[in-house]
Amino acid sequence: MRLSQMLFVTLREDPVEAEIPSHKLLLRGGFIRRIGSGLYAYMPLMWRVLQKVSQIVREEMDAVGAQECLFTQLQPSELWKESGRWETYTKAEGIMFSLVDRQEREVGLGPTHEEVVTSIARDFIRSYRQLPQHLYQIQTKFRDEIRPRFGLMRGREFVMKDSYSFHTDEESLKATYAEMDRAYRNMFRRCGLAFIAVEADSGAIGGSKSQEFMVLADAGEDDVLYTSDGNYSANVEKADSIPPEAEPSPFSAYERVHTLGTSTIATMCDFLKCSPTAVVKNVLYEARYDNGKTVLVLANIRGDLDVNDTKLTNELSRRSGDYGATTLIGLDVPDEASQARWAAKPLPLGYLAPNLGDDYITKSETVVPQFLRLADKTVVDLKNFSTGANEANFHVVGANWGEQFELPAVVDIRTAQPGDRALHDPEQHLETARGIEVGHIFQLGTKYSQAMNATYTSEQGEDVPLWMGTYGVGVSRLAQSAVEQSYDKNGIIWPVAIAPYHAIVVVPVIGDADQVAAAEKIYSELTRVGVETLLDDRDVRAGVKFKDADLIGIPFRIVTGRSLKSGKVEIVRRQTGESQEIALEDVASTVKTWVDVELTNDLEPAPTADIR
Amino acid sequence: MRLSQMLFVTLREDPVEAEIPSHKLLLRGGFIRRIGSGLYAYMPLMWRVLQKVSQIVREEMDAVGAQECLFTQLQPSELWKESGRWETYTKAEGIMFSLVDRQEREVGLGPTHEEVVTSIARDFIRSYRQLPQHLYQIQTKFRDEIRPRFGLMRGREFVMKDSYSFHTDEESLKATYAEMDRAYRNMFRRCGLAFIAVEADSGAIGGSKSQEFMVLADAGEDDVLYTSDGNYSANVEKADSIPPEAEPSPFSAYERVHTLGTSTIATMCDFLKCSPTAVVKNVLYEARYDNGKTVLVLANIRGDLDVNDTKLTNELSRRSGDYGATTLIGLDVPDEASQARWAAKPLPLGYLAPNLGDDYITKSETVVPQFLRLADKTVVDLKNFSTGANEANFHVVGANWGEQFELPAVVDIRTAQPGDRALHDPEQHLETARGIEVGHIFQLGTKYSQAMNATYTSEQGEDVPLWMGTYGVGVSRLAQSAVEQSYDKNGIIWPVAIAPYHAIVVVPVIGDADQVAAAEKIYSELTRVGVETLLDDRDVRAGVKFKDADLIGIPFRIVTGRSLKSGKVEIVRRQTGESQEIALEDVASTVKTWVDVELTNDLEPAPTADIR
Repeated sequence: MRLSQMLFVTLREDPVEAEIPSHKLLLRGGFIRRIGSGLYAYMPLMWRVLQKVSQIVREEMDAVGAQECLFTQLQPSELWKESGRWETYTKAEGIMFSLVDRQEREVGLGPTHEEVVTSIARDFIRSYRQLPQHLYQIQTKFRDEIRPRFGLMRGREFVMKDSYSFHTDEESLKATYAEMDRAYRNMFRRCGLAFIAVEADSGAIGGSKSQEFMVLADAGEDDVLYTSDGNYSANVEKADSIPPEAEPSPFSAYERVHTLGTSTIATMCDFLKCSPTAVVKNVLYEARYDNGKTVLVLANIRGDLDVNDTKLTNELSRRSGDYGATTLIGLDVPDEASQARWAAKPLPLGYLAPNLGDDYITKSETVVPQFLRLADKTVVDLKNFSTGANEANFHVVGANWGEQFELPAVVDIRTAQPGDRALHDPEQHLETARGIEVGHIFQLGTKYSQAMNATYTSEQGEDVPLWMGTYGVGVSRLAQSAVEQSYDKNGIIWPVAIAPYHAIVVVPVIGDADQVAAAEKIYSELTRVGVETLLDDRDVRAGVKFKDADLIGIPFRIVTGRSLKSGKVEIVRRQTGESQEIALEDVASTVKTWVDVELTNDLEPAPTADIR
Repeated sequence: MRLSQMLFVTLREDPVEAEIPSHKLLLRGGFIRRIGSGLYAYMPLMWRVLQKVSQIVREEMDAVGAQECLFTQLQPSELWKESGRWETYTKAEGIMFSLVDRQEREVGLGPTHEEVVTSIARDFIRSYRQLPQHLYQIQTKFRDEIRPRFGLMRGREFVMKDSYSFHTDEESLKATYAEMDRAYRNMFRRCGLAFIAVEADSGAIGGSKSQEFMVLADAGEDDVLYTSDGNYSANVEKADSIPPEAEPSPFSAYERVHTLGTSTIATMCDFLKCSPTAVVKNVLYEARYDNGKTVLVLANIRGDLDVNDTKLTNELSRRSGDYGATTLIGLDVPDEASQARWAAKPLPLGYLAPNLGDDYITKSETVVPQFLRLADKTVVDLKNFSTGANEANFHVVGANWGEQFELPAVVDIRTAQPGDRALHDPEQHLETARGIEVGHIFQLGTKYSQAMNATYTSEQGEDVPLWMGTYGVGVSRLAQSAVEQSYDKNGIIWPVAIAPYHAIVVVPVIGDADQVAAAEKIYSELTRVGVETLLDDRDVRAGVKFKDADLIGIPFRIVTGRSLKSGKVEIVRRQTGESQEIALEDVASTVKTWVDVELTNDLEPAPTADIR
């Protein structure tokens, strides 16, 4: 392609809308353009990158026998009501765009396709003889994000590969899950990414087990905890660990203490001269269920630790049935406005005790009149602990479970922290990193097939629910994460495998007929041998061309400059900045070899690519 | 691909939801599955067809230097308000799905992308030096159709190639338009379609000139008029012609006649013993504009002819400004309910005269108190004509313009009819055919660039609006239209170029080790030489396999049956049913040659492919 004929516009300045390097660079290089909040058009260079990522994904999916399809983006609400997710997705999380059509029917814009594909499976799959099956699509998905940001990282429209496998049993599911783990590692490796696979929470998708693939980068929105021996890694939402040892309590007798102005753990410990590890912290939450019920949750956890919202959400979701509900649709720390709705009298906030009385709750039809009391495992063994006294400016010390307080139901709702000891080896300590989630694989089990009655006839002639797995790759996010991982002050450094073009031929002086002739010759030779090449034949200064070539990150830059007099051209590697002079007649074969080497390298396991 | 491992399910019976052959066959062959009204999932075989069509489209677009992009499907309403189409698309025609997002902003789901691409052009294009430019995308589009039907023919979600060109002037636009005409003919020819290019109305897209590409098929929703000399063809919405000669009126004196029970042209002519060509027919319409105004239109046309809704719509749209409106949002023949809203007294329906009085209109703020009187060209020269008398059961005869009636504004609102003489050669008569619109190219001019202020700096340093063209191909509709054009009682007959696979190897008896061995060998050889092949290795009866192979329309069927004993296999051509025995060792090379011949044939202009 000739740059003179391309819609190619670069910016010298960072656009104000962009916060992170990859977003700035993609905008500056004219790869993407903002159309609205969280909505980006993929311009010609970006489209090529996405096509290359898609092709790598496609090859790896085809290699495991998955079949490519394309499902509808519009999804009838009826399907989502069958699975019970319509409310969660349109109301609770609210991340599904929905609309009412001309026939007054509710329709959602697909953020994911479990319902659609399960409805297809229940039609098409009748017998164990047809199993296993695996369908995939590469498609634009929609999410009405609360805070769209970072360009393609968290957009409202994004390209995804999603796939769905169907099985006779768990064993078959696990085999495909393991196969997908390998396929995903291949994909990300081939795309030139340094990534890590981590245990993950399954969230609104559900199922028994899931794993995320994270590209490590400071701009990542996820926290990953891992051990340096490579044997453990997990999303902080999911991570487990051995918490730090608790220090013994300095108190031996139960006592109520006036602790004026110590409504935080820090100020209280300072005042009482005790360790936060000897404190029971009591945190209030408000859980909202899909049947309109509000449940007030009083969670106890050791003073130095934090409640993990994801774990607490999962715990409360499991308890939906206790309140006659199907789904948890919201979990918040109650603010003043929500307290005003249910609190019978002012709450002793900052001084709550584990036995905060149910008389704080106004009787009403929507609010359950008892606190749901949950204790994190870390408080169980505490002796002579300190905690609130249910009165402002007062705490109690030397308290014990079974004496002053009843121990509530014990659960695991703790956030693991960097520095914690690892469960698999207490000698190992958790380290932390930021990650960009580019893939997520799930063992769904029979969640959707049971809800939607998708069964098959087993070898024994019985109707049995299908076992399912689902596997996603954020294609557009992956493309941007490659930039986030690989750039310098001059611009993007694309891995060869997903670069929009392999090479760019720059003519420094477009008025110099020799330069033009040499460039045209190289351009046509490179194109002929299959090196995807740009020809910068624009009538602009050489400096502008070099800057642009660096900015858009083309791996090999060929300059028909001064050395032309001695029958040579300069070739610069974008990644290293290395420059070489190569004889005109050898350019095509040389660059072709370099490109092929890079593409083959990407197929080899990269030692740095996975810290596990 | 092995059928035993594919999600491959065929139906023996026609599904009740399908009306036309292609829709039935695609459902029966498991190519598509209905997810909701006008929503179809593309299953693995169909996905391959769409990929092939897309690839042909892509190659022809790339060949003319167009650049592939991907724009957003969600489109902020602000952009559509700039072009003035938000109301038309969401309210009047109502074909754009729209929703309100989390931030309470209105967003549309793109049925087309003029606004988005014009907003990009005004950012990216500054100078005449950057022009021309041509961007395209292959993308799923959305339309909230009133009557989704015929499967992919009129779906609410469909795959389209849309492209947009930008130019310095009309000449450059016309050059690209001509280039696209050729590119489209290449595409459709390569896809194996018999098609016709016709003059078309530009509808809500607008612009000065447009042309549709129609696949001729009885199931088509468009009427095409053409001359057999190949020099004229047009959509009936747009077609022009010389109307039949009018017969002289049998009346020479003006007279009011009692014509009891003759409220139709036919009964009246029968009663009066005059030709309908000597009658002025008066038709009432109700036009609604975007500013809330209703205009009552009284259209006069010769008794044997019909008003063309599209031409009348265009005429009334052009007059929007006369009523302080921007857009016409509706045109209907008023029914009783709507008459009740504005008629001051009962209308003499069936007996209307050209001078129906404005006192029939109740004074109100929303209804314009005068009829808009429009006369079609065909009434101008009528002498001594018959027409209504504005009283039930009465007509007048021997009337003349300028005597009993004022001649209103003269316009062309006539529907051309089969049998009419052609304008370019009155010896030629118009013939009619049904067509499926698979492509439409438009010269937009500066409609969008002016409305949205997309300008460039000319060589003379002036800010000038960009000239634009737009070009669409219905990719998924095209795929189904190929089926509509090519099937028999046994199933689909895919053109080789867009068949999901080129060949299918059928093992009649899966328990016969020789048959299996031969089939496996052929399958792997064919795959190796690049013939896309299915292997029917299912454990089902041979008859089922043959039926399925015919149903899904694979061009070459290879059967490892009885002739295997003499070292041969049977190869059957799906299109002709011809069968040949070929030596085992020659199968791969023979089929490869046949496939290549077919693919090359598609590149040649097919004499039947275009009746122009």
